[in-house]
Amino acid sequence: MVAGVKKPIDFYFDFVSPYAYIASEWVEALAARHARTVNWHAILLGATFQAAELKSPVTHPMKRDYVLRDFQRSARFEGVPYVQPEVFLVSSLLAARLFWWLNDSQGSDAATAWARAGLRARFTRGVALDDPAALKALAAESGLDAKQAEAAWGDPLWKARLKRANDEAIAAGVFGAPFFVVDGEPFWGNDRKAQIERWLAQGPY
Amino acid sequence: MVAGVKKPIDFYFDFVSPYAYIASEWVEALAARHARTVNWHAILLGATFQAAELKSPVTHPMKRDYVLRDFQRSARFEGVPYVQPEVFLVSSLLAARLFWWLNDSQGSDAATAWARAGLRARFTRGVALDDPAALKALAAESGLDAKQAEAAWGDPLWKARLKRANDEAIAAGVFGAPFFVVDGEPFWGNDRKAQIERWLAQGPY
Repeated sequence: MVAGVKKPIDFYFDFVSPYAYIASEWVEALAARHARTVNWHAILLGATFQAAELKSPVTHPMKRDYVLRDFQRSARFEGVPYVQPEVFLVSSLLAARLFWWLNDSQGSDAATAWARAGLRARFTRGVALDDPAALKALAAESGLDAKQAEAAWGDPLWKARLKRANDEAIAAGVFGAPFFVVDGEPFWGNDRKAQIERWLAQGPY
Repeated sequence: MVAGVKKPIDFYFDFVSPYAYIASEWVEALAARHARTVNWHAILLGATFQAAELKSPVTHPMKRDYVLRDFQRSARFEGVPYVQPEVFLVSSLLAARLFWWLNDSQGSDAATAWARAGLRARFTRGVALDDPAALKALAAESGLDAKQAEAAWGDPLWKARLKRANDEAIAAGVFGAPFFVVDGEPFWGNDRKAQIERWLAQGPY
């Protein structure tokens, strides 16, 4: 039996999504167990929510209390460190532009390293990713040139690149995060891990 | 070590929720593995959606396509037979009133048997639970007196009983279905099965 080349898993995340953060901590190991790689895509949930006429779960009465509890329990369930940020809804616009700047100018490994650094900073020590000073400090800490980073997030080129990433995600059916596409099959949510794993192990079911 | 009496699992469902149907097929076995029983609660998602300012997932662009696919995949994942009803959004008002009529007049076993019969009829053969003739036929098939059933669903007593069940669910924080409360801990969704099982096995985490 000759195995074909297996397609990468498309993984869509927003830097300020707790469930995307949790999934970011298991997606590479899951893919590796099944000889796959992962294509990371930074997106803005604001854009996909608008397309799907949705709002953040924390803006809904009742659901807000539940998800704030579930974020933490789901992290413990996966054995992922998690600290609830004090200010929950912040913009990930600048961090996401940096992702695409790195992706297109330095390659996907540099972008993925930044994604991990940003997600961990957000959800283990509450770094305000929408604060330029905090973001520059995080960039420097992550081995980037802080001034280059600041120039990049203000550059129309990377603004447009992020917009394209959002448009492409929406065209691919992405309406939330984390969102995965495996061989054309869509999976939404950190809680689809077991379903994805079965798909990777045995193919369509 | 003396084990105390373990509290039942509260299980909230709507007769027209596919995810609640799937969960209804595993919740009793899951509970039994951990020496628990299940308290079933028929509710109307319309009431909880209103309280939480939510809408059915099938009313959202993009999310609609996803969930219609995910209902079927999630059923296959759990090994539960599932046939997508042709008309998706129907009212479960009458079926839910029958649940409470049976629960209060014949006991929870009779109510649970009706819940299973209704959910299976809906999701394996598309029975229109909002159609009085179809519902009477289903009641008769399930060993109930169809005329008594019809009288019950029109009786202000059982209308009020269902309203109370909805109010109590909302007061308990229920904003969707399936919804589970285990020792005061809330779990929302068919996809929380593994988290519930860990809770039952080892307690709070």
